[in-house]
Amino acid sequence: MLKSIHHVGIAVVDLEDSIRLYRDAFGAELVHRATNEKDGLTAAFMKVGDGELELMASTREDSPIGKFLAKRGPGIHHVAFAVRDVANALAEAKAAGLELIDAEPRMGMHGSRIAFVHPKSVGGVLTEFVEA
Amino acid sequence: MLKSIHHVGIAVVDLEDSIRLYRDAFGAELVHRATNEKDGLTAAFMKVGDGELELMASTREDSPIGKFLAKRGPGIHHVAFAVRDVANALAEAKAAGLELIDAEPRMGMHGSRIAFVHPKSVGGVLTEFVEA
Repeated sequence: MLKSIHHVGIAVVDLEDSIRLYRDAFGAELVHRATNEKDGLTAAFMKVGDGELELMASTREDSPIGKFLAKRGPGIHHVAFAVRDVANALAEAKAAGLELIDAEPRMGMHGSRIAFVHPKSVGGVLTEFVEA
Repeated sequence: MLKSIHHVGIAVVDLEDSIRLYRDAFGAELVHRATNEKDGLTAAFMKVGDGELELMASTREDSPIGKFLAKRGPGIHHVAFAVRDVANALAEAKAAGLELIDAEPRMGMHGSRIAFVHPKSVGGVLTEFVEA
């Protein structure tokens, strides 16, 4: 069902510092930026081969990323897998007994359909499907 | 410098349960197993497209993975990037001011040369280079 590792999501304190780090120390290329005010999230996507790193900073402390940073500090936040069809992937995950965060696909920051599976069903790993 | 996301390392409580989860719920294929008694680590590599998930369990509580599980619980542990030459990657990372865990490349569980960069230099992300 999983076609590839689409991206790794990383919670960061300062988005510009993190973009510089991955660009200057590792040669990763900034390919996309997006902000979702509803979720209090501003993100930068850095290309690494066929995959990406999604650097995520909060725009307010009570956002999901703000709370993650307060609780765990900066670091890896989630892993996202490319799938052919997010609705099918959700149906298969549900049939396998996994708890879904998103019952239906929704639009992600990248303009693709996405959905999340709850980390408590996946050994503590917040897992995202991306239709690619 | 980074060619691709080579694998994502995941700390797990029970290796067999985790292999079943990724195989049965997500269709990932088990491609390799390895145990490193010195590091108290037993691992299974699950293929996802051109990348892998490295599921890592501890063989004793005082191992690095045992301590990680005790402190943070199961979940994402590190991200590994394919590079052309680990020694060059280490030199570039050091020149960029990053703190290295491994000053020299060493042999990984997969038979490839690897090295780790300290998470405190990389926004809390334990970062591995793999010569691929």
